[in-house]
Amino acid sequence: MRTIIECVPNVSEGRDSRVIDEIAGAVRRVSGVRLLDVSSDTSHNRSVLTFVGDAPAVKAGVLALFEAALPRIDLRTHRGEHPRMGAVDVVPFIPIRGSSVDECVGLSKDVGAEVARRFGVPVFLYEESASSEGRRNLADVRKGQFEGLAEKMKDARWRPDFGPGEPHPSAGAVAMGARAFLIAYNINLGTKSLAVADRIAKAIRHLSGGFRYVKAMGVELADRGLVQVSINMTNYRRTPLHRVFECVRSEADRHGVPIVGSEIVGLTPAEALYMAAEHYLRLEGFSAEQVLETKLLEE
Amino acid sequence: MRTIIECVPNVSEGRDSRVIDEIAGAVRRVSGVRLLDVSSDTSHNRSVLTFVGDAPAVKAGVLALFEAALPRIDLRTHRGEHPRMGAVDVVPFIPIRGSSVDECVGLSKDVGAEVARRFGVPVFLYEESASSEGRRNLADVRKGQFEGLAEKMKDARWRPDFGPGEPHPSAGAVAMGARAFLIAYNINLGTKSLAVADRIAKAIRHLSGGFRYVKAMGVELADRGLVQVSINMTNYRRTPLHRVFECVRSEADRHGVPIVGSEIVGLTPAEALYMAAEHYLRLEGFSAEQVLETKLLEE
Repeated sequence: MRTIIECVPNVSEGRDSRVIDEIAGAVRRVSGVRLLDVSSDTSHNRSVLTFVGDAPAVKAGVLALFEAALPRIDLRTHRGEHPRMGAVDVVPFIPIRGSSVDECVGLSKDVGAEVARRFGVPVFLYEESASSEGRRNLADVRKGQFEGLAEKMKDARWRPDFGPGEPHPSAGAVAMGARAFLIAYNINLGTKSLAVADRIAKAIRHLSGGFRYVKAMGVELADRGLVQVSINMTNYRRTPLHRVFECVRSEADRHGVPIVGSEIVGLTPAEALYMAAEHYLRLEGFSAEQVLETKLLEE
Repeated sequence: MRTIIECVPNVSEGRDSRVIDEIAGAVRRVSGVRLLDVSSDTSHNRSVLTFVGDAPAVKAGVLALFEAALPRIDLRTHRGEHPRMGAVDVVPFIPIRGSSVDECVGLSKDVGAEVARRFGVPVFLYEESASSEGRRNLADVRKGQFEGLAEKMKDARWRPDFGPGEPHPSAGAVAMGARAFLIAYNINLGTKSLAVADRIAKAIRHLSGGFRYVKAMGVELADRGLVQVSINMTNYRRTPLHRVFECVRSEADRHGVPIVGSEIVGLTPAEALYMAAEHYLRLEGFSAEQVLETKLLEE
């Protein structure tokens, strides 16, 4: 598998395991698709599928997902705590290996056009695929949810990028778009002072002058007697882990505070760790092709 | 593929591409085996196959290799520059993921017993599998080569670990054993003084008091106007890259010499790079299971 694109669709069913299994099964049966995870939340009444493949396989996987989800999920009777506007609510495309965000933008448009044509579901492009700044943020696109969608779409500013100018009766609308892989990364500081963590969070985050692809806040770890800079790395290729780590180290130093450790919460692409090794070991001419496991993933 | 063991058999044919293809094909057809590379050297008249799989698959791969190689290679007429004692000359087993050197020692004995039983080829265990210190070094085991083998084996000290007390008429004998993955790692110094590279090589290598799993020497890089500490990391789990890098940095510092870069020559397991990232980023509770690509390798 030379090219790996991750797709993490969210569907509006998190309670009926038969329905969830049927939808997951439809994706799993697509040739070239590897379904890595299905997580359901009953209070949200929502499930998140994680699958990977190359572009054609991911496209086929999304189409199979719609094929299975649309007859089984009716938003007119759906209740749950999580905001949603569609039976298939949001479909992000994430480049992992051998693909770029730009290529995933192209893929999201290709898949969006086909979903609209085949299923009559309006498609809004968001994040990196957004056709205007006002559509970049998913929360803005989804504002008003399924119940407010018919009214919202009467406004010319909310014409979909693909498909009909009104919601699908039972399936609403879907947001599709490309984004970089998000790494949840926390750095733990040897102090109880939340103020220090907050100051460092401010120093590194984009919002207040820091790195472009960093969101951060200070958090208390009461049980450990520590504080933490809790970070979302929204594009580890452009803003790598080691650069943020070193910046936090320098800022913490200035307060006489040590870094006691850091942690990656959940998944990371191998590349993010290779980049750290490459930086600190000052590797020259390193390529992921030198990693044995990379060869194992090539067919 | 949860468990990955690498097997790198050397066979005594590097000129007849039909024979090499037939042997490689026999290995490739074994279910669960992934043949990653075949490199042939005509002056050595020798080919090196690299394949991976779990223990049962690797065992089946080695048996298929013998099955194909024995009728096609006759050492009585074999000529080449590289020392050899067998048609299948040496079979190393290397733990990559989900396996230890000890488990590979067990595997080498299991496969060795079966090769002796099925093909009547005497098997000498070497490296980590060696039954005595004098058999650890491949060069000692192979000394005298095929031509001297019958005479050598008359000595009770050179009774094989498995199989008959005399060489197979056309296939000689084989050395089998487990060893850790070897990483070829070089560190480049910002000086023209070979003496500095030599002193640092001495400081880090096992032979002269350094790290247990490090072999090293100083090398001149005349075209770049630099010198290099050229290193074989013979067990990156026990002596990791970052520890050697930091030791070289400290020694170079003492001479007022900077490290301008380092390089990995050829392949490395991902784990060696994860360990460096883990060290420098001070990662807590990191597991390779958090790496997306690890999930892709799991079936």
